[in-house]
Amino acid sequence: MELKANKPIKVALDAMGGDFAPENELLGAISVFDDAKQSKNLEIVILGDEGKINNFLKDKNLSKVKYTIVPTTQVITMHDDPTESLKTKKDSSLYRGAEMAANGEVDAFVSAGNTGAMLATSTVLMRRIKGVSRPSIATFMPSDNETPTLLIDAGANVDCKPRFLYEFAVMGSVYTKQILGLKAPRIGLLSIGEEEKKGNDQVREAHQMIKEDKSLNFIGNVEGKDVMSGSCDVVVCDGFTGNVILKLAESFPKLVKSRFKQYADSSVKNKVLAASAMPALKSVFSSFNYENYGGVP
Amino acid sequence: MELKANKPIKVALDAMGGDFAPENELLGAISVFDDAKQSKNLEIVILGDEGKINNFLKDKNLSKVKYTIVPTTQVITMHDDPTESLKTKKDSSLYRGAEMAANGEVDAFVSAGNTGAMLATSTVLMRRIKGVSRPSIATFMPSDNETPTLLIDAGANVDCKPRFLYEFAVMGSVYTKQILGLKAPRIGLLSIGEEEKKGNDQVREAHQMIKEDKSLNFIGNVEGKDVMSGSCDVVVCDGFTGNVILKLAESFPKLVKSRFKQYADSSVKNKVLAASAMPALKSVFSSFNYENYGGVP
Repeated sequence: MELKANKPIKVALDAMGGDFAPENELLGAISVFDDAKQSKNLEIVILGDEGKINNFLKDKNLSKVKYTIVPTTQVITMHDDPTESLKTKKDSSLYRGAEMAANGEVDAFVSAGNTGAMLATSTVLMRRIKGVSRPSIATFMPSDNETPTLLIDAGANVDCKPRFLYEFAVMGSVYTKQILGLKAPRIGLLSIGEEEKKGNDQVREAHQMIKEDKSLNFIGNVEGKDVMSGSCDVVVCDGFTGNVILKLAESFPKLVKSRFKQYADSSVKNKVLAASAMPALKSVFSSFNYENYGGVP
Repeated sequence: MELKANKPIKVALDAMGGDFAPENELLGAISVFDDAKQSKNLEIVILGDEGKINNFLKDKNLSKVKYTIVPTTQVITMHDDPTESLKTKKDSSLYRGAEMAANGEVDAFVSAGNTGAMLATSTVLMRRIKGVSRPSIATFMPSDNETPTLLIDAGANVDCKPRFLYEFAVMGSVYTKQILGLKAPRIGLLSIGEEEKKGNDQVREAHQMIKEDKSLNFIGNVEGKDVMSGSCDVVVCDGFTGNVILKLAESFPKLVKSRFKQYADSSVKNKVLAASAMPALKSVFSSFNYENYGGVP
């Protein structure tokens, strides 16, 4: 996705977030500037242990990279309790980044750290869209369409009240308008049949709530087959189902590759046929690579 | 799958069930006898409108087909209410077939008719496995394994109590023992993480119930990625999630084919590469063809 902006965009980066911090975070940030078009209006604000960051950056070529460092003294680990760290780690890179985004000092904040802490901190500091009571995890799925399909919720809320599903519809609509530039994103509610009466209790109730909100372009219930077909722009579901969908879809290319290997191993002729299929197969499957769709808004 | 039996097997067939009845039902039944090995011990009991059945069969070559006809006078259509038809259509092919199976006059009964009526009639006439309070729909999924994976429930019970999930585990275990010949089918409970505490309320409760039943080979929670990986033999889930999984998985090959078409259309070179990939691709995708896995036990 290409960023479209008239004014420079400042993005805060939690350099202490991921499993290989700060190396991978910084390599990622630097690589963005390889693409002059993409980074034209971009500035990165790096948050974290100043010594470690400078140490890592000292032998890198940073001539094209626009960045500043904001030193922080604490780190939230994957084992920290989200609510606890919100209180006790206010000088962590995660907390400070979220705070800068909330204050408008930066336009966005990115972290690969503790998901729960990110969710809790963002919710407290940035608050939520009006009418939305629960944060959620959304993710883009490859689709048979020009733009990907947003799956929301992909795992934050496993036990969902109908109200939550309605709120996911609102958030998904706002998000795909902003990020994909869609004018009236088509919202589908995941169920087990297209008819209004189909589904479980939550889905039937949520259907009515989404339908009544005339600001949403609600196309009604959709089914499992619609998640990647491009028949809608936003698929609304509870976080349990969303997580299962995400992980199932991620596993499918692996199964296809394994079957290809079986096929190739079954005869010499098939080995040749499978080899000639590889360039096309690789190209097609790279379009399903979830690493291209990663990250959670 | 090959039938293994020491004594002749009698299968009752509802000739009036499907959308193209009785033609497709009878063609199907006849074609089984093309394979002498498969049909060695087989006898088909055809239930339905005797006139229509004889009319269709009169110009067919039936020299190898072992069959008898049981005439019935009523037909349950797709629009009939399941519970209502149970009371008012006792001389239907569906009711009579289920009755013969329940009485032991035949070893099995097959119908392509009204799923709800089939479910209701079978439940009333054949009753259930001890300890099982709800019938379910199960379906085999292609897996990265010698045997397919049973997905249960695939859509019969959308709002599931923990007890239902436990019962699906029992049914799935019995079924895969009988049909796939597995000695200790590996039962996985679908959740959003492998840890016992992960999942929604139902799943957490069901986990304990399944774990306590020592007759089951319970391998714990599994995730979306395990549905087709072959890491377990039975995937237990509620009917809502199961239905979504089934329809998502069915749609995946279509998306891959569509991407292949885009790839082929993007340049002359890619057209050639895509064409050379076709034989391998077709063979691999035929192994995902859900028509090979169709039918619901």
